[in-house]
Amino acid sequence: MKFHLRASFRLSADASKAEAAISVFFSNAKNIVQKGAPEGHGAKIIEWKLTGNRIDLIIDSDRYVRAHDALLRLRRPLAELLGNNYKIGIRGLDINEFQIEVESHRDIGHKIPYVRNIRYEDGFLKLELDVGENGSLGQSEIEKRIPDRIVNLLEEKLQTYGGKSEHWELLWESSPKESNYNKDPTNEMIKRNWIKHGASRGQWIYGPQATQLFRTFEKIVLEEIIKPLSYLEMIFPKLDTWDVWKKSGHAKGVYPEIYFVCPPKTRDPAFWEEVMDYYKVTHEVPQELIKEKIDVPIGGMCYAQCPTFWGFIQGATLPNDDLPIKVFDRSGTSHRYESGGIHGIERVDEFHRIEIVWLGTREQTLEEAEKLKERYKYIFETILKLHWRIAWVTPWFMAQEGETGLAKMEGAGTVDYEALLPYNGNWIEFQNLSVNGEKYPKGFSVKTQLGEPLWSGCSGVGLERWASAFLAQNGLDPENWPEAFRKYFGNMPKGIRTL
Amino acid sequence: MKFHLRASFRLSADASKAEAAISVFFSNAKNIVQKGAPEGHGAKIIEWKLTGNRIDLIIDSDRYVRAHDALLRLRRPLAELLGNNYKIGIRGLDINEFQIEVESHRDIGHKIPYVRNIRYEDGFLKLELDVGENGSLGQSEIEKRIPDRIVNLLEEKLQTYGGKSEHWELLWESSPKESNYNKDPTNEMIKRNWIKHGASRGQWIYGPQATQLFRTFEKIVLEEIIKPLSYLEMIFPKLDTWDVWKKSGHAKGVYPEIYFVCPPKTRDPAFWEEVMDYYKVTHEVPQELIKEKIDVPIGGMCYAQCPTFWGFIQGATLPNDDLPIKVFDRSGTSHRYESGGIHGIERVDEFHRIEIVWLGTREQTLEEAEKLKERYKYIFETILKLHWRIAWVTPWFMAQEGETGLAKMEGAGTVDYEALLPYNGNWIEFQNLSVNGEKYPKGFSVKTQLGEPLWSGCSGVGLERWASAFLAQNGLDPENWPEAFRKYFGNMPKGIRTL
Repeated sequence: MKFHLRASFRLSADASKAEAAISVFFSNAKNIVQKGAPEGHGAKIIEWKLTGNRIDLIIDSDRYVRAHDALLRLRRPLAELLGNNYKIGIRGLDINEFQIEVESHRDIGHKIPYVRNIRYEDGFLKLELDVGENGSLGQSEIEKRIPDRIVNLLEEKLQTYGGKSEHWELLWESSPKESNYNKDPTNEMIKRNWIKHGASRGQWIYGPQATQLFRTFEKIVLEEIIKPLSYLEMIFPKLDTWDVWKKSGHAKGVYPEIYFVCPPKTRDPAFWEEVMDYYKVTHEVPQELIKEKIDVPIGGMCYAQCPTFWGFIQGATLPNDDLPIKVFDRSGTSHRYESGGIHGIERVDEFHRIEIVWLGTREQTLEEAEKLKERYKYIFETILKLHWRIAWVTPWFMAQEGETGLAKMEGAGTVDYEALLPYNGNWIEFQNLSVNGEKYPKGFSVKTQLGEPLWSGCSGVGLERWASAFLAQNGLDPENWPEAFRKYFGNMPKGIRTL
Repeated sequence: MKFHLRASFRLSADASKAEAAISVFFSNAKNIVQKGAPEGHGAKIIEWKLTGNRIDLIIDSDRYVRAHDALLRLRRPLAELLGNNYKIGIRGLDINEFQIEVESHRDIGHKIPYVRNIRYEDGFLKLELDVGENGSLGQSEIEKRIPDRIVNLLEEKLQTYGGKSEHWELLWESSPKESNYNKDPTNEMIKRNWIKHGASRGQWIYGPQATQLFRTFEKIVLEEIIKPLSYLEMIFPKLDTWDVWKKSGHAKGVYPEIYFVCPPKTRDPAFWEEVMDYYKVTHEVPQELIKEKIDVPIGGMCYAQCPTFWGFIQGATLPNDDLPIKVFDRSGTSHRYESGGIHGIERVDEFHRIEIVWLGTREQTLEEAEKLKERYKYIFETILKLHWRIAWVTPWFMAQEGETGLAKMEGAGTVDYEALLPYNGNWIEFQNLSVNGEKYPKGFSVKTQLGEPLWSGCSGVGLERWASAFLAQNGLDPENWPEAFRKYFGNMPKGIRTL
């Protein structure tokens, strides 16, 4: 990685009388621009030149003390020298040329903000930043370390693009359960009129029997987890704005899987008259015309369920006595634009989930995670009687947000719960549990009263996934279901018959 | 209203030998083109001319037998005459000129499909339809009666635009209840940390206390309505596609209030790389760029709650023994782009509703509506102890879909339930109940086994609205709540405190 920077310090007055002192300053500047870098590394001042009230600099560097960091490091001691001895101030910085070279195995075909030009040559991406008089990158962007964001982006991208593989490590597997059932539960449910395709992609309408199954799972979660562990119910919003996803981190990478939401540009009926008229005459909805009349997307339909919770305590300080805080939500749907291979209710675009969220000190958060795991184990072993397993996987916030490099939060991470689908021999992820470290409290600026780090965790119980796992192993006939589950379920409702 | 049409019948052969017979046909054609019209009204054949294998016609008319109807009426008897006597067939119709004049008090500024040109002159809208060689309106559109759709559209629009007023007729009002509470419940809930603004417009995050209130309302509905009247729970989808709204009728006019949903054009991460890179460098979401990368809207977030239910029985025939069918849904949020004057939780963009749907014969549907009204009355009088009233209003499907002219379905219609807000003296609509006649069964092609008309009804219990009404009249302190409600509510949960 190489940086080549031409920049100037603008001074409040002609500094000719200080030229000798400035010369001494720059001949000793190595201490400043290489401090902390390994021997032989860091930035180098290639040239400096005083011209009246301007000092022009050329700085080259490697990755250790980057050229723009070197420039910022020089500012204060130089200002002290000129101020104390000559009453001259530094008015500002001009960036005249800034080039960055990064090793890469590929070109980048699209624009990157603040970059005027990218060339791919001899295994290097050569970036010319958009500096100079009409450039978008100046002093303020240098101070905000925008060049570092660009470099981080490239490094992350070039490391991971196309080849990210998820970590997966088995922690525990249950014994196989007795069952000879080996049919695809979605097909069986369709045959019995328990479910019907919805009008949208990966969407189902659940009839009374399937709904009672989902509500039974919910009852089990309430009775076996929520009540004994004293979680409080809340209602989290189900339209996620960019603001929420910026704080939760999803804005980094969630776009390919979002159902985007756009409000109308106005709710003036006259503005929409052409659309209504078109429909009334043609009986077709003019989708292109509507696209012109809707605003830019304000966010999307609920994707992960917990980000909108955090608005409730955003910016707040939590009393230590009230920790851990433990809440859950079951107030609506989640929506993901899933890959083409959507299969039955196992992988759907619209799904139903109970989201459990807890926050406290690191110790409290980890302890609560263990309690939840115990309760889950009890449910899967004793009530649902599943053949299941649990694995340590890439944390969801790395997978969903395109993050790389394991966050330095010992104990944080995600476990996936998987169940065997006997009809095809695959394992289906039917829920997960994550300890997210300080990620969310930091993102939403939530603090503890005593200043200890605040941690949080979340766990999503996917009702479609529980149903897939349970029915694939136990079939659709209640007489073959585990006794404890049957008690929770009660009588099978009469469904809706059609001729 | 005036129609002026120039059209031709294309014949399979030269019809010169039939000219005399054709002449006789057209001199008697008045019987055909004025049949059923009031004396002196209907269409007139202004001119006809046989030229080889083509008969050119000019037809003028008023609204009674419209010119294009007259043309279609002529086809069969003319084809019989030519076929039987001369073995000449009618190959098709050409539309050469078609003008329509409609009385109007205003111009229309936008395009209407199949209309080439609109002029507003002397109190008339003069439409020139897009006919002729490269025109969009030809024989098939005439057969589909597209000109009638255009005329209906204009008549409806010119009648109602800007001046639609809702019908409202008081049916019953309860006695006032004893209570001195007169505060705005939203403000009080905010003060006590029961609710917080969400990140989006008209959106709230409900803390444990408010959520328990909502769940108590739900419990009351379950215990006092769902169980005694034997409704079955279903899960209705919460993303409504155009296809659903075309069948439900919402596609006619719901656009100004919709949160539109757009999927990504593709879920290929490379396609979204520029967006992710932009965000990672600037920490801002590039909304305009995203708008380019999302597809046209496929529909919107749930608006009315019952349309997606109908997919479950779409196209089906229902066994008479199973009627009435009675279901409900409480599986997610509804979203409306409401007007600017959003006030607290009384008028919100994101809300929670229990939707009750029933269908059966006309008699069953009306009887069930009465049973529901009795149960509601019991709840509002005995458990919530509200000061409320009930009014007969414009049916929701007329208000929401821009329909005009009361559908000819005796007994169908909507009642609104309203409650007094003592703090401002207004009445708030807190739920409604509609008998929708054959509207939905026809829209979704659902039939009864014995062929009797199938009717349906729906009733939405808005939890935000119940909360607004109940808290505005009874306050936030359980000790001031009606005894029967307190029993349902149980203990007030400890909320989430912040410092």
